[in-house]
Amino acid sequence: MHHKLKQDVCDANVALQRYGLVLFTWGNVSAIDRDRSVVAIKPSGIDYDDLTPESIVLLDLQGNVIEGDLKPSSDTPTHLELYRSFPALGGVCHTHSTHATMWAQAQRDIPCLGTTHADYFYGPVPVTAPMTAEEIGQDYEANTGKIIIRRFEGLDPAQMPAVLVANHGPFTWGASAAAAVENAVVLEEVARMAAGALGINSDQKAVSSSLLDKHYLRKHGENAYYGQA
Amino acid sequence: MHHKLKQDVCDANVALQRYGLVLFTWGNVSAIDRDRSVVAIKPSGIDYDDLTPESIVLLDLQGNVIEGDLKPSSDTPTHLELYRSFPALGGVCHTHSTHATMWAQAQRDIPCLGTTHADYFYGPVPVTAPMTAEEIGQDYEANTGKIIIRRFEGLDPAQMPAVLVANHGPFTWGASAAAAVENAVVLEEVARMAAGALGINSDQKAVSSSLLDKHYLRKHGENAYYGQA
Amino acid sequence: MHHKLKQDVCDANVALQRYGLVLFTWGNVSAIDRDRSVVAIKPSGIDYDDLTPESIVLLDLQGNVIEGDLKPSSDTPTHLELYRSFPALGGVCHTHSTHATMWAQAQRDIPCLGTTHADYFYGPVPVTAPMTAEEIGQDYEANTGKIIIRRFEGLDPAQMPAVLVANHGPFTWGASAAAAVENAVVLEEVARMAAGALGINSDQKAVSSSLLDKHYLRKHGENAYYGQA
Amino acid sequence: MHHKLKQDVCDANVALQRYGLVLFTWGNVSAIDRDRSVVAIKPSGIDYDDLTPESIVLLDLQGNVIEGDLKPSSDTPTHLELYRSFPALGGVCHTHSTHATMWAQAQRDIPCLGTTHADYFYGPVPVTAPMTAEEIGQDYEANTGKIIIRRFEGLDPAQMPAVLVANHGPFTWGASAAAAVENAVVLEEVARMAAGALGINSDQKAVSSSLLDKHYLRKHGENAYYGQA
Repeated sequence: MHHKLKQDVCDANVALQRYGLVLFTWGNVSAIDRDRSVVAIKPSGIDYDDLTPESIVLLDLQGNVIEGDLKPSSDTPTHLELYRSFPALGGVCHTHSTHATMWAQAQRDIPCLGTTHADYFYGPVPVTAPMTAEEIGQDYEANTGKIIIRRFEGLDPAQMPAVLVANHGPFTWGASAAAAVENAVVLEEVARMAAGALGINSDQKAVSSSLLDKHYLRKHGENAYYGQA
Repeated sequence: MHHKLKQDVCDANVALQRYGLVLFTWGNVSAIDRDRSVVAIKPSGIDYDDLTPESIVLLDLQGNVIEGDLKPSSDTPTHLELYRSFPALGGVCHTHSTHATMWAQAQRDIPCLGTTHADYFYGPVPVTAPMTAEEIGQDYEANTGKIIIRRFEGLDPAQMPAVLVANHGPFTWGASAAAAVENAVVLEEVARMAAGALGINSDQKAVSSSLLDKHYLRKHGENAYYGQA
Repeated sequence: MHHKLKQDVCDANVALQRYGLVLFTWGNVSAIDRDRSVVAIKPSGIDYDDLTPESIVLLDLQGNVIEGDLKPSSDTPTHLELYRSFPALGGVCHTHSTHATMWAQAQRDIPCLGTTHADYFYGPVPVTAPMTAEEIGQDYEANTGKIIIRRFEGLDPAQMPAVLVANHGPFTWGASAAAAVENAVVLEEVARMAAGALGINSDQKAVSSSLLDKHYLRKHGENAYYGQA
Repeated sequence: MHHKLKQDVCDANVALQRYGLVLFTWGNVSAIDRDRSVVAIKPSGIDYDDLTPESIVLLDLQGNVIEGDLKPSSDTPTHLELYRSFPALGGVCHTHSTHATMWAQAQRDIPCLGTTHADYFYGPVPVTAPMTAEEIGQDYEANTGKIIIRRFEGLDPAQMPAVLVANHGPFTWGASAAAAVENAVVLEEVARMAAGALGINSDQKAVSSSLLDKHYLRKHGENAYYGQA
């Protein structure tokens, strides 16, 4: 049951390592079957080299394990918050990738300085507020999801498939587990380029809304014309 | 027909990935047969691993497809503008390589700080003006070519085979597709070295015109004496 | 005798190269059998590619060679000081890894700016005082251990498994040789992320004690809940 | 004749690529047989993958080709100046390695900030004066050697096996071609670490003379005790 979902989630987790986004077991990807409200996620603390589709854990949206012998990722409550609040999400990815984490630690939104960014993220990539002692003390992982959701008031998660959790690291998402990972790869590169550009010119401002619209909409939405589709 | 042209363009596109200049499908290389006015270019959104000479698209200089089942790169109108205005060009390359893109995003010319730069680029590598809303709104990709051409007033594209499109990334060129890619590799390294040198000494000035002449002309033109030729 | 200890130490030294923490022979890992007070350590100046369990040197805690034809690492007296003063240590690792060494050379503690750091190091990673001419002149390597121990007054080496020796580089430790190497890998990444974060936001402060406690204790101690254990 | 010399020089040039110190053909290594005053050097503009011992060019110290069908490296006159003035040299290496070239472009000596540096270079790595128009205009490559030699007044090239040519890049040397390459690898890492350390703490001063002496002399000279010798 749900073999393809587990295979996709397994493949997406293994890809984290191939793309250089993780050390040891520091990242996790999940996906959801919206028809059945079943979430598949990486087991906690397992090496990517040892992952198989059978080791992927299946849960319902309340976090009850449906299938799997291993404990799910400790970040599972964060993933579930995002799936419950953002119906457009088909996959979620969390890493501590180097340059995105630098921005999360610096508690700064990543400004949109170029078309590489605008091709994927429709505006500055937002950083959350730091968590309070109360939010940390109880239901920490679920509250991590809640501060993301609070930060997205007025933002469309379908057009901004990434967030930086302050003092922590990035979460990305997409229509599938693979799309969430692709956005994590791009976020890492965009974070690196933005820090480097500001190192060269600390006064650099964001691109114009015309350029942002042009590039984002060239690849996304009904008037997209990039690729073979 | 044009088998060698398609093979060269296929090889040059694949080389982008080997040299670490691209993620996913973020770069494209073309070449022109000047005798027949035929341009060969990468198809849009196709993985480098899946490229074959047969998948390369052939067009005339007005952008009409002569041969090929796939859509050409969305950046094709930029390439065509460059071929029409710069008769010396045999190949054109566009990437979002990390360090060159940082400079493009910082909207700064890359100053010539050393002989690595002077061996390939005869002066500072220019950045274009940012595009206006009008230029972005209509014929965006063709206008990208036009702002490059406008920036080259007074510059010889044969001696300056690279440009940074503001808020976007580098275009490079050369006598062939392979030469355009070589210049893209060097530009990336020169961009990285210049940012690092200015990080160490923010007051550093460009090299003397004597040193620039010596190195550029040691490798280029009729008095060149580098290599076995 | 002590075959497993020698095998573990050999494997941990070889891992330094695989993780990109060393050039040439610039790092060494040891482990201790606490029941027999026997320390196993890399021989001095031997390539990682040539290491075998048989080449590992066995010593007592006073530095007398028990077994082995080769000279032990020149840093052996530092390792022995640490084992004698910190009973919790099962393995010790020394490298000149790039980013951790930058902080050691800058003589700055690495502040805890995020959860990546807090997952492994319970507070800022300390840098020692620079050594005096007297400490350098006689018993240099043993004194390197002594300045580490002096820096740890008031610190628990079990909760802070890393130190930066001023103007030199990092030492890390753990329950085993492999754990000491894992901490060296994490320290290198944490050092890189902290320098990058401060480059983006030079005013950035350390995380709250709530977040530090949450992450460190989520992975360590009796209430840990990360992983499958 | 001179088969071992040619083999050593071939191997040392190929190692430049393996150590990531060169792009394309941007580096060259030579060695000298002092008994016969014969210098072996890389041919100009040949790919490292195509190098064989037979392709290595042999010259006398005045630059006359003794053996070899190819033109020697265009930097040959610089190598010969160094061999003539510095009798201790057995091998010379020139690259445009990234971080060492940043310092050469910044026209700053690399200060000795740590033991990694002190293990190999007995003080700050010197940068030459920029070359004058006259020095560039005639006998440029020989004059490159002469400005290095001028910079070494009061310095011992046996204890400082590296120099940065202003606006150009590093030359390193040693007892053999392999030793010259090893010093090039270390210089690149030391350059990277120094820039990073100053990025973290711009006021950081050089290490004490006690620490410099201790580390340099631990590895070099008659009282060395590092390694198995």
